Amino acid sequence: MKNKKIRDYGICIGNMPTGKLNSITDVKGVRVGHSTIDKGNIKTGVTVILPHLENTFKNKLIASSHIINGFGKSTGLIQIDELGLLETPIVLTNTLSVGTAQDALVRYMLDLNQDIGDTTGTVNPVVCECNDGELNDIRGLHVKTENIFEAIENSCEEFEEGNVGAGTGMICYDLKGGIGSSSRTLKLQNKDYTIGVLVLSNFGSLEDFVLNKDPIGLRIKDTLKNKESEDKGSIITILATDIPLSSRQIKRVIKRIQTGIARTGSYHGNGSGEICIGFSTANVIKHYESEDFININILNEDKINKIFKATVEATEEAIVNSLICSFTTIGRNNKKVYSLKDFL
Amino acid sequence: MKNKKIRDYGICIGNMPTGKLNSITDVKGVRVGHSTIDKGNIKTGVTVILPHLENTFKNKLIASSHIINGFGKSTGLIQIDELGLLETPIVLTNTLSVGTAQDALVRYMLDLNQDIGDTTGTVNPVVCECNDGELNDIRGLHVKTENIFEAIENSCEEFEEGNVGAGTGMICYDLKGGIGSSSRTLKLQNKDYTIGVLVLSNFGSLEDFVLNKDPIGLRIKDTLKNKESEDKGSIITILATDIPLSSRQIKRVIKRIQTGIARTGSYHGNGSGEICIGFSTANVIKHYESEDFININILNEDKINKIFKATVEATEEAIVNSLICSFTTIGRNNKKVYSLKDFL
Amino acid sequence: MKNKKIRDYGICIGNMPTGKLNSITDVKGVRVGHSTIDKGNIKTGVTVILPHLENTFKNKLIASSHIINGFGKSTGLIQIDELGLLETPIVLTNTLSVGTAQDALVRYMLDLNQDIGDTTGTVNPVVCECNDGELNDIRGLHVKTENIFEAIENSCEEFEEGNVGAGTGMICYDLKGGIGSSSRTLKLQNKDYTIGVLVLSNFGSLEDFVLNKDPIGLRIKDTLKNKESEDKGSIITILATDIPLSSRQIKRVIKRIQTGIARTGSYHGNGSGEICIGFSTANVIKHYESEDFININILNEDKINKIFKATVEATEEAIVNSLICSFTTIGRNNKKVYSLKDFL
Amino acid sequence: MKNKKIRDYGICIGNMPTGKLNSITDVKGVRVGHSTIDKGNIKTGVTVILPHLENTFKNKLIASSHIINGFGKSTGLIQIDELGLLETPIVLTNTLSVGTAQDALVRYMLDLNQDIGDTTGTVNPVVCECNDGELNDIRGLHVKTENIFEAIENSCEEFEEGNVGAGTGMICYDLKGGIGSSSRTLKLQNKDYTIGVLVLSNFGSLEDFVLNKDPIGLRIKDTLKNKESEDKGSIITILATDIPLSSRQIKRVIKRIQTGIARTGSYHGNGSGEICIGFSTANVIKHYESEDFININILNEDKINKIFKATVEATEEAIVNSLICSFTTIGRNNKKVYSLKDFL
Repeated sequence: MKNKKIRDYGICIGNMPTGKLNSITDVKGVRVGHSTIDKGNIKTGVTVILPHLENTFKNKLIASSHIINGFGKSTGLIQIDELGLLETPIVLTNTLSVGTAQDALVRYMLDLNQDIGDTTGTVNPVVCECNDGELNDIRGLHVKTENIFEAIENSCEEFEEGNVGAGTGMICYDLKGGIGSSSRTLKLQNKDYTIGVLVLSNFGSLEDFVLNKDPIGLRIKDTLKNKESEDKGSIITILATDIPLSSRQIKRVIKRIQTGIARTGSYHGNGSGEICIGFSTANVIKHYESEDFININILNEDKINKIFKATVEATEEAIVNSLICSFTTIGRNNKKVYSLKDFL
Repeated sequence: MKNKKIRDYGICIGNMPTGKLNSITDVKGVRVGHSTIDKGNIKTGVTVILPHLENTFKNKLIASSHIINGFGKSTGLIQIDELGLLETPIVLTNTLSVGTAQDALVRYMLDLNQDIGDTTGTVNPVVCECNDGELNDIRGLHVKTENIFEAIENSCEEFEEGNVGAGTGMICYDLKGGIGSSSRTLKLQNKDYTIGVLVLSNFGSLEDFVLNKDPIGLRIKDTLKNKESEDKGSIITILATDIPLSSRQIKRVIKRIQTGIARTGSYHGNGSGEICIGFSTANVIKHYESEDFININILNEDKINKIFKATVEATEEAIVNSLICSFTTIGRNNKKVYSLKDFL
Repeated sequence: MKNKKIRDYGICIGNMPTGKLNSITDVKGVRVGHSTIDKGNIKTGVTVILPHLENTFKNKLIASSHIINGFGKSTGLIQIDELGLLETPIVLTNTLSVGTAQDALVRYMLDLNQDIGDTTGTVNPVVCECNDGELNDIRGLHVKTENIFEAIENSCEEFEEGNVGAGTGMICYDLKGGIGSSSRTLKLQNKDYTIGVLVLSNFGSLEDFVLNKDPIGLRIKDTLKNKESEDKGSIITILATDIPLSSRQIKRVIKRIQTGIARTGSYHGNGSGEICIGFSTANVIKHYESEDFININILNEDKINKIFKATVEATEEAIVNSLICSFTTIGRNNKKVYSLKDFL
Repeated sequence: MKNKKIRDYGICIGNMPTGKLNSITDVKGVRVGHSTIDKGNIKTGVTVILPHLENTFKNKLIASSHIINGFGKSTGLIQIDELGLLETPIVLTNTLSVGTAQDALVRYMLDLNQDIGDTTGTVNPVVCECNDGELNDIRGLHVKTENIFEAIENSCEEFEEGNVGAGTGMICYDLKGGIGSSSRTLKLQNKDYTIGVLVLSNFGSLEDFVLNKDPIGLRIKDTLKNKESEDKGSIITILATDIPLSSRQIKRVIKRIQTGIARTGSYHGNGSGEICIGFSTANVIKHYESEDFININILNEDKINKIFKATVEATEEAIVNSLICSFTTIGRNNKKVYSLKDFL
């Protein structure tokens, strides 16, 4: 049942070592869950990233967001950047269901924290999206509150990639895309640390697709006799790490996600909402802090290059994994989208 | 029934002339509607700003957003800034109801535009919020889809200010706040143009409140024997104009909203989400544009100073109007919040 | 010889306590030096802020910059924001002399650090400016390398304000402006901390000037029978503190400088370059750091409101001090600019 | 004498057509000039881009800047972004000579415009830089005012690339880098338009270098038995076009420059200042404008994808041209840097 990822095909992207699962969940405490809605014209769903094992509202994590191309409807980024903190799980879904997902995430957080909106302030739900409208009846608004709850309940370390959860109806480089993940490890102060990346891929034109420096997209396009297509859609990239980083440092790291995307061939088309969120599990910022000052551990910035490289490699590989883990799909209007698997 | 605004008390803020209604609806085509929910512990609602008389998705307006303090959960700003366009009405509500409002606005737009999510892309709903949790049972999530629809239906030129719509449960400078509006007119190329501002006010400490350079807040605080309070809450400011401006010019204009807020005494407390959105009705950008190039009219930037001044004056006066149009209110936990009217 | 500041006239701005000198140099280690060039048509100079007693290149300070209005030519801000660090003194001078000042600051840093450009990287000189061209023959480019060196040598704790250094030829609210400073103290974790502000003021229209909530500018304008003027020029604001803050926190603090400026009446005219730089002396970041991780102390963000308030008060008072410490001046083209002193 | 560019070696990057010269000067009116300083330990210089044939101060061009990695000392970007305008030539030089270049550019502009600093405001000189300190005695500050004047005088359409002007001492992917250029053409509204890119390349590690999808850098590294190196240095990228674009649209375009850089293999190392400036020659904004409103032509944004693609291709090819046009060089401390030519 476990997906075959690109390394199972003998293709290694980059030269840094991966974590045990080659997944964002190699970062200790991170879990991912899906809720998939797949019946006929309806191809959509929800994917949730739980950032650590604690109550994230009471024990916030240092975070940052970065916008590569802001043609998108993600929500929660403004407060992440003002305060440098993440205080909820991150929910991914389709573009028109962001409101439903946000409402569901609020309900989940209210339930978990009786103080929110009563004796303390409110909460900043984070929801990101891509438009799955080519394969999915997106106007039907089929994502319900329960799907978000289900995705949270399903969260675990060994999760599926490809056509699953929020990735169910996504198309990437005119092939079937969706959820993909990868990780890299590196040594700092004689200890192993991990960078994990998860993407929801829904962008690119087939002719532009480059697989580990091989312009395979052009060949597949010839095989399929496809017409030229527009680079549109979106890609959401979530980066997790256990390396102690400040929010400014995380922003510098996630700006390199564009470079990882670039290596797969895209030039970030006009209609592609490309949004990145990064967080570090290393420092915990308490919601109720009694001291006036707090101590945080951050990176000696001279050591950041390896982290940049890890980010680029893991992003490139996560995108490829989102393709290779997906299977050929027929959706709305009988549109058929092939899997990369069919061409390897 | 019409509210008495601050000028009805003989207090004139600034020296530029106001529009006919001294309201954001002095900008031709702009309409405002409310849906108020006020029963016991429930003090909340929805306010909608319709930016012009046309279908805003098909006929988009040039717009920009600016974040003074990003401790807030407003949504839709990312795409406004990437594309410089507004394509939906703007909905204001309480912090925890943003998801519901976003979903409702999506439904409204889908109904109006059968092509969205079918033959064309998706839509970027814009929802802004303040936390009315001190007077309102915000955890009850009392705003429903119908409230957004009702506010849209109620939209008109002569709308109420104060405790109404999204302003029902808001507190500003420890007094009853909510919806307030004001406008200024100026001449360009021998024609009259209008700057209109609408605020949803929910910020500030009483001791800091300055009314047209008079530090009346300190005196009211003494009268009420109030304790010192934190400057928290939020303020949303919407600016409309019929002056032809580029999105870059609109951003420069709405950065001066901070100065208008400052003149009422606040220093933009940590917990105060302070968000600005501005739009111009002068150029219409078609969703389906057949030409490769379009012509837009913009301002000779040397003439922008009067617009800055108008913005600062109208923002200051809109905040004061939100106070003076509100009445004393008892809400959740029997909290009583006085109206400024009681002290003039 | 010491300037009479606004408190010496019995006018107290705000209600927080000031430091001993009511100056940016109340932050321990901060020193300020001037080099004044004042002969006939030539009214210009240089002011330098030394951020601490150590070699700032080897022992960098956490810093941030903020742009209120970017119609200005200050340099060095890009790297401050990327790395969150200040590594040189800050030099203030006239707009057309930024190149000369930058070159001089490079020479000063090269001399102090034989490794720069040899065995280590380069250095990021920080130079800010206002246009003193109304009183000064700015086209003459009268600032020389020696003036920057002289200002550094002259640096001390008890420095002059008003018509001095970079402030020699500046005009603020159509009155004589220039260098002004103020400070506030507050308690955190049972210890006293200081916020110090220094401005180079060169902005505003007389009619808009408000002195501690009194619109005195209008009255002075009537007395002088001045014509209406444009709000142009610039204001540079430097904030120093010994409170441990991250660069993100410093950016939040210095965004409130706009509010301090607003309280003096301006609306930040089109042609006014309004630039802010803030730094904290609390954490020192070594240029040669051997550890992979470092520990920094930062503020519990719930405690930041007092710092916001201190910033607003100190900015307002520093501007007023720049006015009240200046004397009436006749410069280029026999232009006469009055001192605020003449009207109190 | 004319450089052999990468297409002369039979290697074509991308599939869009180039302009006649495959250079930034394919954009009508754009000229480039160099001043080279090359004697022994001194390997540095100046390159100037003249944006059009008119006096750029009196006839400004719409422009934008973008910062990929802000570890750099470029100057003039703040005002470009506030006003969306370029009003001087763009000067490139070494990091420690920015002050000298800025002063020289001010002198050039003052000479050309007797009104600057007298009857009108000041001028915003734009200077970008990379650190050539490995091959060049950068501490010697060998760039003089005359070099900037000489580069301007030398400006023409058919300019040299490689080891020349500001590129004289630059190193890219551990090979000899410097000045490189490329262009692409596309049809809009049945007319031909051009995108031209010029880079000053000084970044990257040999092992990461990818030439048109071929990881040749690894092979060269093996041949040279080089040790691993850090990705540091910088890259400045200037984009010119005759397509009518707003400053917001230009910013979107130049954000794709990161993608062009990415295709050559780099991940934008910590110490690499990566700065982009773009301008369009299509609309001219007069310094003395008598009308209150102006008309500008901009792109129908749905047509922007081809421009993104052109930008990515031209950036990738300009970098490769900067390598292939450079020759093997021995500089400071007898450091020898090979040309890519030696390995093709």
